[in-house]
Amino acid sequence: MPTADRLSGGSSPADQATVRRLNLALLMRSLADGGPRPRARLADDTGLNKATVSSLVAELIERGLVIEGNVDRGGLGRPGRTVELDPGGVRFLGVELQVDYIAGLVLDLTGRVIARRRLGRSMSELGPARALGVVADVCRDLLADCESRVDQVQSLHVAVPGLIDQEAGVLSFAPNLHWRDVDIVHTLRGRLGWTDARITVDNDANMGAVAHFAVGELAGTANLLYLAGAVGVGGGMIVDGRIARGAAGFAGEVGHMPIGPADRLCGCGRHGCWETVVGLASLLDAVADADDPVHDERIDLGARLERIRRRADRGDQRVAAALTEHGRWLGVGVSMLANVLNPEAIVLGGHYPVLRGYLEGPVVAALRAGSLAGPNVVCRLEFSTLGFEAASLGAGHAGIEEVIADPTLARLGAAG
Amino acid sequence: MPTADRLSGGSSPADQATVRRLNLALLMRSLADGGPRPRARLADDTGLNKATVSSLVAELIERGLVIEGNVDRGGLGRPGRTVELDPGGVRFLGVELQVDYIAGLVLDLTGRVIARRRLGRSMSELGPARALGVVADVCRDLLADCESRVDQVQSLHVAVPGLIDQEAGVLSFAPNLHWRDVDIVHTLRGRLGWTDARITVDNDANMGAVAHFAVGELAGTANLLYLAGAVGVGGGMIVDGRIARGAAGFAGEVGHMPIGPADRLCGCGRHGCWETVVGLASLLDAVADADDPVHDERIDLGARLERIRRRADRGDQRVAAALTEHGRWLGVGVSMLANVLNPEAIVLGGHYPVLRGYLEGPVVAALRAGSLAGPNVVCRLEFSTLGFEAASLGAGHAGIEEVIADPTLARLGAAG
Repeated sequence: MPTADRLSGGSSPADQATVRRLNLALLMRSLADGGPRPRARLADDTGLNKATVSSLVAELIERGLVIEGNVDRGGLGRPGRTVELDPGGVRFLGVELQVDYIAGLVLDLTGRVIARRRLGRSMSELGPARALGVVADVCRDLLADCESRVDQVQSLHVAVPGLIDQEAGVLSFAPNLHWRDVDIVHTLRGRLGWTDARITVDNDANMGAVAHFAVGELAGTANLLYLAGAVGVGGGMIVDGRIARGAAGFAGEVGHMPIGPADRLCGCGRHGCWETVVGLASLLDAVADADDPVHDERIDLGARLERIRRRADRGDQRVAAALTEHGRWLGVGVSMLANVLNPEAIVLGGHYPVLRGYLEGPVVAALRAGSLAGPNVVCRLEFSTLGFEAASLGAGHAGIEEVIADPTLARLGAAG
Repeated sequence: MPTADRLSGGSSPADQATVRRLNLALLMRSLADGGPRPRARLADDTGLNKATVSSLVAELIERGLVIEGNVDRGGLGRPGRTVELDPGGVRFLGVELQVDYIAGLVLDLTGRVIARRRLGRSMSELGPARALGVVADVCRDLLADCESRVDQVQSLHVAVPGLIDQEAGVLSFAPNLHWRDVDIVHTLRGRLGWTDARITVDNDANMGAVAHFAVGELAGTANLLYLAGAVGVGGGMIVDGRIARGAAGFAGEVGHMPIGPADRLCGCGRHGCWETVVGLASLLDAVADADDPVHDERIDLGARLERIRRRADRGDQRVAAALTEHGRWLGVGVSMLANVLNPEAIVLGGHYPVLRGYLEGPVVAALRAGSLAGPNVVCRLEFSTLGFEAASLGAGHAGIEEVIADPTLARLGAAG
């Protein structure tokens, strides 16, 4: 039955190697959450004995994950050197390949962003082959920016707006890029020639959810829904502390819930999809005629959204009415998802945060009115503060968390 | 990040006690899935060494979970006695407290039903205090039916149609029973006086999902959605092999998705909820006038549904039209949930299976038309064959799985 034990503990014998791997992970988690400490304090904090801690730390040093720091004279007893995550060792690349931009960053093991790049360009026009060439270039540039070596790259996670076959490393279908069946992982592996790095592809909204689970005010929220506002509207779900991908990896396709007006044609070919009223294109169409600069894709999206907000602030009736309607429809779907999934928080990202002042009221009202559990159990509504970096940041953190959960993924002898 | 390790392995040191518990669970799972075998074969099948298996089996015997069976002469080497789950030891009670009936059963550790009772009676009219008195009576009768002793009862799981605070053991709100804040667990503990049994309350649709995850054709399907058709329509979700309850335990409240006609008033006080067109009450109203016997609650629901089906079979136009409309609306929501959750299968239970012949066509069509991932990735649609026993059966299996996942929950010295 439905317990973690069926899938993990129950499926293979627990032996000394498993125990050691779990304890390496425990130590890494403790260092990530609690910061540098001497071995004796780590033993106290984890419940492991001191000899075990010393042996585990030696292995983590050998794998290039931790280093010795300053001598700690704060505690009782003999002063010892502190142990900490090594910010100078392994590197984690997170890249988002979006319809109209590529965003990439490099994280060190402590989660600090040590390089970031963003490149505005229509990826759908470029096509998959050339677009992945650009991704590879961005990855190399990012490494150069932070003066890191290829052998320091632990992983590259790529976030893409579409349905992913994660096991195969393939983008099955990206409705707004108009791509089908693109082998992201092997193409990038071939282009980059990074033989030791782990390369993974994932859905952009999933990675946005991971970003909010990893950093900021909502970090650690075990049940969280992230909605990425763009031309399409994707959802990323954290359920009981894990990404919920569904049976085929396609969970979270909320943009096509048939709750919009029946006469609206969606990019997917159906009518009445939710994203026909809460997607970016529907907003742009509602606020301005086709020749208005807010439609001009050569202008940065952030700047165009600011322009819309300023018009509303100045009392532009058409814009104000469009935003109210956008918020009302957003509320309908958000409240429904809250009842189906019962998340602790729903985070709105993409184009929504810029327009928060106009969207928050109607969405919160809908959440309160729609909460079956009563007004005391309304799910939190948050607007992302990560901007258009959410997915790439989440992709980077997905790499860090992989290696914290299983430190044996880091190569022995990687130190130095 | 989103990995099981953060929540399980990463949160406490792995020590010898943990290892032993995991290996006890591994052995129990192997016996549950693979049946009786000698110790040597169990060692081969689990990867544990023979001495460990012998020691673990001794503990499981001491806890009353396994017994020695016949001498196995089939294999090579010295014949040994087989080891098997003890069907004569611990007992698991599963009870469903529904709006108009109580259903209960007793399972042995092998999952065999050794007693079952069903009592048609309006629980909402009875009120929570007297209704729980009836539940306690049913539990005692069930034990007597299978000639089991109170000290054999490992657990009692109670399934209720409502929002549950599982940690507190409290039913927070049951819209169709019209109950609020009922302390199910402590009331039953007080009434029954079973000091050693675990008593748990859970949502009826969750338990229906567990039933289909535990037995039958869909057993083990890691991503599964169960929809329980009744006056209300509840959902139970298995996500990556575990019940997804959401942040406050209220996940799966699909009946109030606002996708029905805007002018339909729901029992919850809102308009346009899905269950106003796919709930049992809406169906009964659509097929027959108020004075028709299909509305007579003194007649068993199964018999009334059969009557509706026979009318449709005979070509009754009103009934046929109502069923087609019921199926069409069912398809709208089912297809939406398939895109949001991407389950491998959606199982329809409650009143739907009896009407399968009329509902399956429209729902499958909607699933195909609505599948964003394309026609090759359509989720399976199944009709439950467990009838009105799904929730109580799931409740019983929830108890079995608890003890398989952690055999140390069974009392030492329980043997005999």
